[in-house]
Amino acid sequence: MIQSVAKVRVLYADTDQMGVVNNVVYLRWFEIGRAEWLRQHGRPYKELETLGHMLPVVEAHLRYRLPALYDDIVDVHGGPIEVRAASLKFGYSLRRERDGAILCEGWTTHACISPDGKVKRLPDELTALFRVGV
Amino acid sequence: MIQSVAKVRVLYADTDQMGVVNNVVYLRWFEIGRAEWLRQHGRPYKELETLGHMLPVVEAHLRYRLPALYDDIVDVHGGPIEVRAASLKFGYSLRRERDGAILCEGWTTHACISPDGKVKRLPDELTALFRVGV
Amino acid sequence: MIQSVAKVRVLYADTDQMGVVNNVVYLRWFEIGRAEWLRQHGRPYKELETLGHMLPVVEAHLRYRLPALYDDIVDVHGGPIEVRAASLKFGYSLRRERDGAILCEGWTTHACISPDGKVKRLPDELTALFRVGV
Amino acid sequence: MIQSVAKVRVLYADTDQMGVVNNVVYLRWFEIGRAEWLRQHGRPYKELETLGHMLPVVEAHLRYRLPALYDDIVDVHGGPIEVRAASLKFGYSLRRERDGAILCEGWTTHACISPDGKVKRLPDELTALFRVGV
Repeated sequence: MIQSVAKVRVLYADTDQMGVVNNVVYLRWFEIGRAEWLRQHGRPYKELETLGHMLPVVEAHLRYRLPALYDDIVDVHGGPIEVRAASLKFGYSLRRERDGAILCEGWTTHACISPDGKVKRLPDELTALFRVGV
Repeated sequence: MIQSVAKVRVLYADTDQMGVVNNVVYLRWFEIGRAEWLRQHGRPYKELETLGHMLPVVEAHLRYRLPALYDDIVDVHGGPIEVRAASLKFGYSLRRERDGAILCEGWTTHACISPDGKVKRLPDELTALFRVGV
Repeated sequence: MIQSVAKVRVLYADTDQMGVVNNVVYLRWFEIGRAEWLRQHGRPYKELETLGHMLPVVEAHLRYRLPALYDDIVDVHGGPIEVRAASLKFGYSLRRERDGAILCEGWTTHACISPDGKVKRLPDELTALFRVGV
Repeated sequence: MIQSVAKVRVLYADTDQMGVVNNVVYLRWFEIGRAEWLRQHGRPYKELETLGHMLPVVEAHLRYRLPALYDDIVDVHGGPIEVRAASLKFGYSLRRERDGAILCEGWTTHACISPDGKVKRLPDELTALFRVGV
């Protein structure tokens, strides 16, 4: 269910003075993971938002395993791992492209809300799409 | 043990097009939470690093409760919540200064490593300091 | 006209592997410079935006003089340096609090636009406010 | 001399509540522009750094022309535009892939320093490489 969806190159701006990627950067890569999974399954997030289905992050978990280094290529794996009536969970695995080593694993939970901020049920078509993914 | 240690003002650059603070920003505020707790307890992280005690984040958890908005003042609470032989857990609660509402809660776990990247035991004086905090 | 309006502490997340603050961070501090100048002169940007006066950055210039380091306190100086019919220029000087050394200087130019994105004249009251600042 | 070297997709985290990419983000894309130019000309920055040739940004200029929007693909053009004894200037043009419209143009100047922070002359081979680029 979690599959390779994108590759990103570590920028100098992503590193900190410990000589590794700073912990705040990985949540950006998680965003890439879910956005590209959605795109590759025919439903770009931009389109979902236009239809009034917003999926803000309500919970996030990150397990940093090995430091990503400057200029590394990171292979971003992502995909849905759980679907509920009004929420959705995406899982991620960020791997060093060179050897497949896991740099960071984690997940994010998303509520489904309408543009006015009210929580709502996931539309049936999205539930179906995500269930296939899971 | 988790106490108010700093206030931060939300920047325009912290918001996203949903009109709220983007999820990646809160880990920056967690850093402020632990850094200021350490400073207020007499051991700034900069000094720990100089002594060869690095405390990189190895795990992080965030529970987003209410959106922080542009120009809000966020009251950052932080402090140690668990101490082990070679690791340490900080807890955080980010509150809206205006009414104390909890915007985000979470924690980070830190390994203790030496400058060459080897995991080591927390020095006794740090263990003692953090235990008092817990 | 450019005056001390805020102090910011350098985060670990702001540094890069050269051991100094990465060049992308200073534009965040420029934002703090203009936002706090506006607030201290009675017109917070949040309020201007509510009134339909948006001031997006259309040009920016940065001269990096000395590296800011982790845990440094940066004394942010900012203020308007030029006012035109439909645009405005803010100047900035970022100084190391410890000794007043200039870390970075620069400016940003801002168009005045309405919420629908159309360029418009600066409202008279803003022109007057900024002229006093200049 | 400034040529297309990379494409980047705008993240949600890059936008702000004006519904466009925040001004601080473009300096990240400038980094991608020079890093990919160097890589494509056989001298990745990581290798230059290993050889002791650091090229920190000492000045930057940005002209924001059109807003980049969420999910846009940005075509990053970059390349050297001036070479001096101990410094170097890179130029950039960020274009919307869809129609080639220029979103942002600018440049950065870089000093050449050794790992101990001393300014030094650009090595002859780099001068030659950059002159070809110019």
